[in-house]
Amino acid sequence: MKNRIITISREFGSGGRTIGKEVARQLGIPCYDQELLEKLAEESGFSRDYLREQGEYAGEKGLFGLSLAPRTYGLTNQDQIWKIQYDLICRLAEEGPCVIVGRCADYILRDRADCLRVFIHASLEKRAERIVREYGERPESPEQRLRDKDKRRATYYRFYTDMKWGRAQNYHISLDSGELGLDRCVDLIKQLY
Amino acid sequence: MKNRIITISREFGSGGRTIGKEVARQLGIPCYDQELLEKLAEESGFSRDYLREQGEYAGEKGLFGLSLAPRTYGLTNQDQIWKIQYDLICRLAEEGPCVIVGRCADYILRDRADCLRVFIHASLEKRAERIVREYGERPESPEQRLRDKDKRRATYYRFYTDMKWGRAQNYHISLDSGELGLDRCVDLIKQLY
Repeated sequence: MKNRIITISREFGSGGRTIGKEVARQLGIPCYDQELLEKLAEESGFSRDYLREQGEYAGEKGLFGLSLAPRTYGLTNQDQIWKIQYDLICRLAEEGPCVIVGRCADYILRDRADCLRVFIHASLEKRAERIVREYGERPESPEQRLRDKDKRRATYYRFYTDMKWGRAQNYHISLDSGELGLDRCVDLIKQLY
Repeated sequence: MKNRIITISREFGSGGRTIGKEVARQLGIPCYDQELLEKLAEESGFSRDYLREQGEYAGEKGLFGLSLAPRTYGLTNQDQIWKIQYDLICRLAEEGPCVIVGRCADYILRDRADCLRVFIHASLEKRAERIVREYGERPESPEQRLRDKDKRRATYYRFYTDMKWGRAQNYHISLDSGELGLDRCVDLIKQLY
């Protein structure tokens, strides 16, 4: 397998985004994360802040919010965003080697033989430490925030891909960044490129 | 994390056993796989052929076979084997560095900080090719054999560990041996030791 594209799926707080950026920097290829959001905002007309959550998370109503209520009136905002995101990610993959963080890129590019699919995870404790360090304290406990994020991300993933999020079998390599450390994860991924 | 022990959990047909043996050979430490079965046979009085399936797979009755029927009369054979296997694996881990293949060792040693937990998987197609090559043809299709094995192993794992088998979060590293190749898997695991 010769890889031109690396997709990084990650649990919230696992450092997957940082790992993706560093891999891209060391390999000298672009990393689409914030840039993806910018392009998505440009093409969809929705604001970046709105899109930050919409292309990866189910709303508070979970699957019910995704599947039933608003669909009475045709495509939901999330359906439209999914479609634009889908096309955009396919286009970016065509343009050349890159790292793509999140946004179900692993699923969207699943049929490309040149795509290395990576999943980054860590224990609840390690992720809780990390999000407090990175994003500060909030009214809810960090564990509560993580559980909520995990649940809404898994629901979104399940709905649009019909696959189970975090199942090892969906990825070429899955790494526990909390135990292995971010630098080691970067090294391992680089070696597979 | 400094690793003295490596546990290899694997999907049937993924080559996980071969990877475990090769890692152990290259690191110059013992690999417990057949030897574990020998010791288990010695300590339990059950035959090796009987034990080959019993410490990893639910029977054809699945969860029902494990949980209800035979338990009316106290401990089942599988319960006894689980207990002996549990104690044996803890003892082996105490004795010194080693690789342990299968037998829920990842769960049994989960509280040891010096244990690297590895999961090896591959696509159904790649595993089907491999089992026909290694074990020859059978009356059932290879895909059918794999699905049956996967299901019975997941049921066993769930029953005795109360965890979901194949969930990336249970392991430090999960690898797709079909895409990455066995040698590369061996290299990556060795680096983390």
